[in-house]
Amino acid sequence: MTFNIERPGEGMRGQIQEKIDNLNKPKGSLGRLEELAMQVCMVQQTLCPQLSHPCHLLLGADHGIEREGVSVSPRCVTWQQMINFTRGGGGVNMFCRQHGFDLSIVDVGVDYDLSGIEGIIDRKVRRGTNNFLHEPAMTAEEMERTMAIGAELVDRCHDKGCNILSIGEMGIANTSPSSIWMSLFLDIPLDDCIGAGAGLTNEGIRHKREVLNSAVEHFFLTTKSRDLSSIKPEEVIAYFGGFEMVAAIGAMLRAAERKMVVMVDGFIMTACALAATRLCPEVKDYMVFCHSGDEHAHQAMLEGMNARPLLNLGLRLGEGTGALCAYPIIESSVRMINEMNNFDNAKITKYF
Amino acid sequence: MTFNIERPGEGMRGQIQEKIDNLNKPKGSLGRLEELAMQVCMVQQTLCPQLSHPCHLLLGADHGIEREGVSVSPRCVTWQQMINFTRGGGGVNMFCRQHGFDLSIVDVGVDYDLSGIEGIIDRKVRRGTNNFLHEPAMTAEEMERTMAIGAELVDRCHDKGCNILSIGEMGIANTSPSSIWMSLFLDIPLDDCIGAGAGLTNEGIRHKREVLNSAVEHFFLTTKSRDLSSIKPEEVIAYFGGFEMVAAIGAMLRAAERKMVVMVDGFIMTACALAATRLCPEVKDYMVFCHSGDEHAHQAMLEGMNARPLLNLGLRLGEGTGALCAYPIIESSVRMINEMNNFDNAKITKYF
Repeated sequence: MTFNIERPGEGMRGQIQEKIDNLNKPKGSLGRLEELAMQVCMVQQTLCPQLSHPCHLLLGADHGIEREGVSVSPRCVTWQQMINFTRGGGGVNMFCRQHGFDLSIVDVGVDYDLSGIEGIIDRKVRRGTNNFLHEPAMTAEEMERTMAIGAELVDRCHDKGCNILSIGEMGIANTSPSSIWMSLFLDIPLDDCIGAGAGLTNEGIRHKREVLNSAVEHFFLTTKSRDLSSIKPEEVIAYFGGFEMVAAIGAMLRAAERKMVVMVDGFIMTACALAATRLCPEVKDYMVFCHSGDEHAHQAMLEGMNARPLLNLGLRLGEGTGALCAYPIIESSVRMINEMNNFDNAKITKYF
Repeated sequence: MTFNIERPGEGMRGQIQEKIDNLNKPKGSLGRLEELAMQVCMVQQTLCPQLSHPCHLLLGADHGIEREGVSVSPRCVTWQQMINFTRGGGGVNMFCRQHGFDLSIVDVGVDYDLSGIEGIIDRKVRRGTNNFLHEPAMTAEEMERTMAIGAELVDRCHDKGCNILSIGEMGIANTSPSSIWMSLFLDIPLDDCIGAGAGLTNEGIRHKREVLNSAVEHFFLTTKSRDLSSIKPEEVIAYFGGFEMVAAIGAMLRAAERKMVVMVDGFIMTACALAATRLCPEVKDYMVFCHSGDEHAHQAMLEGMNARPLLNLGLRLGEGTGALCAYPIIESSVRMINEMNNFDNAKITKYF
């Protein structure tokens, strides 16, 4: 699947900066809001940006690697939470309500029959990936199909008038593939990419490290090379990825293609963003990194991508909650450039 | 002026924690939101907190010390901005609109006749403080009167149904008294408490340091002691404070007395919060520290108060903009405890 992502045109940058610098405040004194306003203006190629019909995709799927006991939560929590989300009682629900997001709950590969449940969009590829300790999580064909699902979901949002997209995930054990992607895409030792997930003990972390290191060793046997630069990103994505993660990559790339702002959530979604930049580096210009947790690995991944998140509230729930909590900050930046007086019409002596 | 502030009763803490721990998420996985929910519940002494009729007090006044050239902006910017705020074009206005705050713009001591201007509440003590390089900024009687003004403004908010208060300031040169309060209340060398304010050059900072050190030396001649523990906080407050700052202290203390949540903005409001805790340590339980700028001095002051701010967006505009930007986070915490399902009613296998 190919995406045709253009970088935002540089032609307007000077004008946008001039507008920001003429608002009635000391230059630069609105800090990150000024940088965000610049980014949103560049994405939309306008001096008067608007955020319209914000959408949140909640993508759910199960992971074969969960069978190895790498997670504190059992696999059944994935489907139970998917149903919980349809009833409005999950973390993602309350923040979507708070910030007016249109929430789509999508089954991309949950290991449970959710087909009869109202409020769940059925895009199941199959009931969970293979266990990548022994074999690729999915085939190349499945990866393509799953990316296309993500893209199609974004098209639905875009058709409703959405120009800002947030993505969250529900998939027990999905920190495992995220850690491996981080390690292979950034060439960081795997042990430094593995944390406690939703709350592993030290013993649990040790076990998770063993399992994941062994999986990566096995992967290198299939690639017949340890030279990361010679391994295609698609191979890494299909071998370890979850269906919800691959759909997220497709969604990010399509959103950038359609010139939408892409809000990136926590560890798992940052790993998807990283994978997406390996397929199309241009996608990064459309991404707002919303939240960094307290985990060292997440911070190192953000640094490796040269990305500075807006918030650090110590969240580690997933579902896109970190991204959603950052939305009002993006709104503030848009208000700033649209609503704040400049020195002339405010009749204020320009500061230095 | 005395304030009768009670610490929130400890009796409910266990019940609140139990409610938070039973929400359908891994324990602690909503990080700072869980801590915030605990604080708001404790302040309101309830398991089902509500934020009602949020109010923002924008307090403006001028400073005698401005005559010494310690600020990049000229004194006239204070009154010009006050008028700008009445027209809705300032930083504070757009964020009040965004988050539904009832904004009161109050002249506590601006050096300009604003009495005829619609939208400005006239509580002028006088047209700016004295220059504390040579004499106390205000008398003890003026300090008392100004604190009472702050308290009365909070009563007005409370009468409208407000239970969460944000305070911002407009007062050219007010980083100077803030730095001195920080130094004297936390016993930190004055030079470490002085930064660039709204954008001073290195030469400007050097000059500011000279002026403020000289002012503090002069103050010590009047106290006849350098022993900080023997100097009453009221003396420090009246000698250096601005009218807007002293009104803010009165407002914070009255708000705590009335069991309201107090949102603390950036460097200047943090200095006022610090001064308020020196008068009544109990006030701190009611304070949410909303924003830390990039300045070392602000971070050191927060550390000195053992306070962790919610945001760091690099804002240094004042007006309460940092506090206002953090409001949705507080709202999110309240939604969490009120709206999120618990494990029982969500029918989810409890994680570990």
